[in-house]
Amino acid sequence: MTRIHNFNAGPAALPVEVIEQARAELPSLNGLGMSVMELSHRSREFQAIIDSAEAGLRRLMKIPKDYDVLFLQGGASLQFAMIPMNLRGPGKSADYVDTGSWANRALKEALLTGDVNIAWSGKAGNYTRIPKQDELKLQSDAEYVHICSNETIGGIHWKEFPKVQAPLFVDMSSDILSREVDITQFDMVYAGAQKNLGPSGLAIVILKKGLAERAPENTPIFFRYSTHIKDGSLYNTPNTWAIYLLDLVCKWLEARGGASGMEKINEKKAAVLYDVIDSSDFWHSPVEVESRSIMNVVWRLGSEELETQFISEAKKAGMVGLKGHRSVGGVRASIYNAITLESVEALAGFMKEFERKNEGKL
Amino acid sequence: MTRIHNFNAGPAALPVEVIEQARAELPSLNGLGMSVMELSHRSREFQAIIDSAEAGLRRLMKIPKDYDVLFLQGGASLQFAMIPMNLRGPGKSADYVDTGSWANRALKEALLTGDVNIAWSGKAGNYTRIPKQDELKLQSDAEYVHICSNETIGGIHWKEFPKVQAPLFVDMSSDILSREVDITQFDMVYAGAQKNLGPSGLAIVILKKGLAERAPENTPIFFRYSTHIKDGSLYNTPNTWAIYLLDLVCKWLEARGGASGMEKINEKKAAVLYDVIDSSDFWHSPVEVESRSIMNVVWRLGSEELETQFISEAKKAGMVGLKGHRSVGGVRASIYNAITLESVEALAGFMKEFERKNEGKL
Repeated sequence: MTRIHNFNAGPAALPVEVIEQARAELPSLNGLGMSVMELSHRSREFQAIIDSAEAGLRRLMKIPKDYDVLFLQGGASLQFAMIPMNLRGPGKSADYVDTGSWANRALKEALLTGDVNIAWSGKAGNYTRIPKQDELKLQSDAEYVHICSNETIGGIHWKEFPKVQAPLFVDMSSDILSREVDITQFDMVYAGAQKNLGPSGLAIVILKKGLAERAPENTPIFFRYSTHIKDGSLYNTPNTWAIYLLDLVCKWLEARGGASGMEKINEKKAAVLYDVIDSSDFWHSPVEVESRSIMNVVWRLGSEELETQFISEAKKAGMVGLKGHRSVGGVRASIYNAITLESVEALAGFMKEFERKNEGKL
Repeated sequence: MTRIHNFNAGPAALPVEVIEQARAELPSLNGLGMSVMELSHRSREFQAIIDSAEAGLRRLMKIPKDYDVLFLQGGASLQFAMIPMNLRGPGKSADYVDTGSWANRALKEALLTGDVNIAWSGKAGNYTRIPKQDELKLQSDAEYVHICSNETIGGIHWKEFPKVQAPLFVDMSSDILSREVDITQFDMVYAGAQKNLGPSGLAIVILKKGLAERAPENTPIFFRYSTHIKDGSLYNTPNTWAIYLLDLVCKWLEARGGASGMEKINEKKAAVLYDVIDSSDFWHSPVEVESRSIMNVVWRLGSEELETQFISEAKKAGMVGLKGHRSVGGVRASIYNAITLESVEALAGFMKEFERKNEGKL
C-alpha cells in the first residue's frame, strides 16, 4: 500500500504493521465472525484484549503493582478537569508549571474550580524553554504538582523531571513510551493515545493506589477515578477499537526494544533534523537547546513566505503535517514512535535540497 | 468473509457493507496515503468527514437549524453527569422517569448533585412497562424532564413519548434512528453510538440552541456544552475513527430509506420474534405488550437450565449475544438496524426447532 511521510502532530501516524494487522482482522477477529468493534465489552474475548493491553503497558513502562492503569475516554482534556475535581480537595491548593499550550489548558481548568499556584510560567518567553529546578516556586502544602512532559506546540520537553515534595502528576500525551522514564517519580501519569499509543478517543491514566480516595463525596460518579478503578475501566462502554489498537501498538513496541529501543531511535531521528537546522543560518530553532523535544521538532525559515513555500513543496514531495501550530507559526515535524528513520531522513534530504535551491532567499 | 449472527446488546453488529468499506479504506483514505485515524482532526479532509456526518444525521432525523449537533466522547454516561451540571441550575429541580437500568443511572447522577423529582418508577414492577401519561407526577417548575426512550436491559420502549411542559430530554442510545421520531418534541436528544450508529467511544448530542447558556460560570470548561458548540466538537481531539464510521452508517441508512425504512424492517424483525414467543407456552415474555421494544427482545423459557441450554446451542448454531443481562437473566436478542431480517429469521427458525426438540421440558 502507498503510504505518505506523515508528520502530523496528533492524531498521528500509526505503525504500518499495526494498520495491516487491524485490516486483516477487521471483518472477523480470531475466527469469531465479527470485528473487535462488534464484540461485547463484557465478553471474555474483549476482557483478554484489555488485560493484554494493560499487561503490555505495565511491562513497557515498568509500572509497579501499587498503581492502577485505566483506559478512559475524553483524552487529556477530560483529565485536566478530573484531576482538580478528584485530587485537590476542597480549600486546598495545587502547583502548576506553565510550560506551554497544554500545561496552560490544565492550569485553566484548575483555576476555575479552586486555588492554584503557578510555580513557574514560560509565557513571557513564548514558551521556548523548560525551567531549571531552582526556578520553581513550589508551595510547601500543595496537594500535587502538575507538569506536562513534552509540549507539542512549543517543541520543548523536560529532559530531567523536577524533584518535588508533593505528589507529581504528569501529562505525557506527546511523549509517552518515547524514552525510558522511571515511573515511580510520579504519582500520576496520563496521556491521550493519539500520538504515541494508538488512535484518538482513548486516554491512559496511571494512578498511584490510594489517591482516588481523596475525591469529595459529591463528585459525580462518572468523574470519579474510584468508579473506573472499581470496574476495571468497564463502568461504561470503553473505546474498544482503540484499546485493541493500543494492545497491537504495545506488542509492536515490545518487538522493537520497548522504551529504551524507542529512545535510541528517537534520539537519532531528532538529531538528524536538529543537525540540519543547526548546520546553517538558513534554518533557525526558536527553542533553548537543552529543552529541545525529541518528538516535536520546530523551526523557522528566513520569512513566513519561505516557510509557506517549504511546507507546500514538501507536501508535493510526499511529506505532510509540517505546518507549525497556528498559534506560533513556522514549521514542525512530529516524529513519534511510528515515524520511521527513513521518513525523517527523507525530510532531512528534502530540507538540504530546498536550502540549496533557495539559499539566495535567506 | 464469514460473519456470525450477532445479537449483542452493545457494542453491537455493524453493517457488513460499512465494515467492508472501512477495510478497503484503512491503509489509505481517498489516496491520501494514510488512514482516517492518522489524519489531523484540524485538516480539511477530516472537517469534510465530520461535516458530512452532521449533515447526514440532520437529514435522517430532520433536525431543525435551531439545534446544535455535537460529537463527544464518554458515551451516554458522560451525559448523565453533564446534563444536571449544565442544565438544572443551582437550587433548581428536574423530573426523572425511572423506567429501567439506564434511566436509573441518569437519575443517580442527578441525585448526587442537586434536587430531583422521580416522576414515576417502574422499579417495584421489575421495569417491565412504560408509564401512562397520567401516571407521571411532574413538577410545575422543573428545569427539564428526563426519559430513556428504550431500555436495553428491560426490553421496553416508549411507543409514544410523553407530553410535558418543561423541556424534554431523551437518552436515545439504544433506538436512535430505528424508527421515525419527531425531534421537535425534545429539547435534547443524546445517544451513545455503539448500538445503532457506529462503534463505541462516541456519543451524539442534539441540543436546542440557547440551553447551553444555562451552565453556571464555574462549570469546568471541558464539561460545558458551550465549549463544544463553540468549537464544532473540535475543542479537543474527537474520536475521528468513530465519526468516520458514523458517517458511513448514515450513508448506509439513507440508501435504505432512512428512519422510516428502518422502522418498517425493524417492526417486521421484532414481529418475527414476538410471534414465536407468543405462539406457545414454551416461551414467555416478561414485558407488557404495549411497552415491547423493537430493538431488544427479551424472553424467558421454562427454567434457567433450559435458558442456559438454549443460549449454548444457539451459539453452536452461529448465533451469539443472546444471554440476558446478568441483572435480569433470561434471553435477549438485540436486533438493531444492522441486524438483517435473515439473521432474525435464522434465530426464529432455531427457536422453533429448539422447542420441537425440548417441548417435553416445559
